[in-house]
Amino acid sequence: MSGVDESGIVAPEGGRMRDLLRVAPDGGTVDLAAIDPRSTPGLPTAAGSGKRRKAWAHEQVELLGTELGRQQEMLYASAKAAAGPEAPTSAPTAADAHLDGDRPRRLLLVLQAMDCGGKDGTIKRVAGAMNPLGLHIRSFGPPTGEERRHDFLWRIRRALPPPGYVGIFNRSHYEDVLIARVASLVDETTWRARYDQINAFERELAEGAVTVVKVMLHISYGEQGERLMERLSDPRKHWKYNPSDLESRARWDDYQAAYAEALGRCDTDAAPWFVVPADRKWYRDWAVAHLLRETFAGLDLGYPPAGFDVERERQRLRGGDERAKVNGR
Amino acid sequence: MSGVDESGIVAPEGGRMRDLLRVAPDGGTVDLAAIDPRSTPGLPTAAGSGKRRKAWAHEQVELLGTELGRQQEMLYASAKAAAGPEAPTSAPTAADAHLDGDRPRRLLLVLQAMDCGGKDGTIKRVAGAMNPLGLHIRSFGPPTGEERRHDFLWRIRRALPPPGYVGIFNRSHYEDVLIARVASLVDETTWRARYDQINAFERELAEGAVTVVKVMLHISYGEQGERLMERLSDPRKHWKYNPSDLESRARWDDYQAAYAEALGRCDTDAAPWFVVPADRKWYRDWAVAHLLRETFAGLDLGYPPAGFDVERERQRLRGGDERAKVNGR
Repeated sequence: MSGVDESGIVAPEGGRMRDLLRVAPDGGTVDLAAIDPRSTPGLPTAAGSGKRRKAWAHEQVELLGTELGRQQEMLYASAKAAAGPEAPTSAPTAADAHLDGDRPRRLLLVLQAMDCGGKDGTIKRVAGAMNPLGLHIRSFGPPTGEERRHDFLWRIRRALPPPGYVGIFNRSHYEDVLIARVASLVDETTWRARYDQINAFERELAEGAVTVVKVMLHISYGEQGERLMERLSDPRKHWKYNPSDLESRARWDDYQAAYAEALGRCDTDAAPWFVVPADRKWYRDWAVAHLLRETFAGLDLGYPPAGFDVERERQRLRGGDERAKVNGR
Repeated sequence: MSGVDESGIVAPEGGRMRDLLRVAPDGGTVDLAAIDPRSTPGLPTAAGSGKRRKAWAHEQVELLGTELGRQQEMLYASAKAAAGPEAPTSAPTAADAHLDGDRPRRLLLVLQAMDCGGKDGTIKRVAGAMNPLGLHIRSFGPPTGEERRHDFLWRIRRALPPPGYVGIFNRSHYEDVLIARVASLVDETTWRARYDQINAFERELAEGAVTVVKVMLHISYGEQGERLMERLSDPRKHWKYNPSDLESRARWDDYQAAYAEALGRCDTDAAPWFVVPADRKWYRDWAVAHLLRETFAGLDLGYPPAGFDVERERQRLRGGDERAKVNGR
């Protein structure tokens, strides 16, 4: 299986990443302990072995980035063409996020991970390859006072990407069945009801032309320890460290159980969950880039046709310039 | 004058870009016709000549991008440290944009240009080098119905970057003294009053810890014509073209006059205006990257000190891991 296309991108081996990394397609239970965080599903033989693989993956991520940028531009272009000559207007607002299946597509990447799981790094390297103009990145921390006065999906709805944008959620509504459960921020009846609420919400997104890709970056307990120590050892990384990280770490098994249930209960065809082994950063970036590429491919995007008479505009442009010459411009 | 630092970045020749590209430091009138859009102020001898300069500039922009990314991280880190362990919370909202001189800095790049002036390209290449997580990009088109019901600065205030972020305005409140004036969207008394209103607003931003850099990308009439024709000739670029572009083009001289007055009236020490010759895209990116670098340098950023006892946290981390081993993790 060679699978190299003209852009130089080598296809994953053994099938699409979407199939290789999907863990609960039948809504079954997920055994996270059975997934090795250092494994590299789909990595082709062409990658070589040992340290060579890292350089190979970096090169591939570079090529994938160019391709993702091209796809993103087509998504953006379609939305702009559909919105008419007045678009894009100003800042994306909650109003823009109004769901409507007839409107142009948006893509939403949901990133979840334990602390140090690599969410920020993934955004920097994978999303960083796209045009920042077309990205809509939102980070979710502890809810603010205002957010707490609404249901848990309220702030999520407000943060959806507008049509034509690639949205990225750095943490998400899944915190409401993860930390909310482990730290007992709400009672069990409340968080138990949320799985169905999330599934209904995500079905609504799919029907509203939002293509959702949910990725859990799966690191090991040992790797998290090393990364935390790194943050403590480098003064330039102290700002990333929070003493409460160790409280979460002490509850590792509870978090893994909460993740497993969330992944199993909320893996749907409308909004599938993928688990990306993430102890190796180069593999993580490569895998997420391929997941996004496959998702884009499924949208079958193209550049929108001109909404005007091209030949006539060329003539107008030339004619105007003739007149301008008379004015000495 | 060599001016190469350890990162490989070559300093501009003849002074800081901030001084070389500032056109109306005394609030005087600006003669845009006297600035050659193909000129390359500050480009050092090291760049070589002819086509070699382009490759040189691309390399330098790459190095500058890494440096801008580092500065951006420090800006973000300072804001996060100041906000305490709960930050960053969720999506930046209007509430976050509340101005307060004691809060951590934010940087705001305002980009203005005639159609095809290269705003999108500049964002892609210069901002694209920074971490998208710390960027806050907003594009302003014709105001929506709701925006029209407020004063012209209302939507601008709502789009300000939160503390710690690098904001980029793709068009801005200056449209309200440019197209609003040329296309007579409001009467003369109204737009004439706006220069003072803008200056007061931007002074408020400066006092509210927002560092503003305003850049006009200055292209020639001929270059705009070529770029428009390119958009008409390439079906992948049709979506960027709008028949109304030619109406604006026909009013070229009026727009240049409106720009000249805006630049002259609203160049203040609190929020200076820079004119970047932009017919050569490689020079444009290089110049804007240096302007941003000099602006960051003026902020004198550093990584924030740890808000916790580092040694104690290292011990806690090790201690927790000892206990975890007992549980077989």
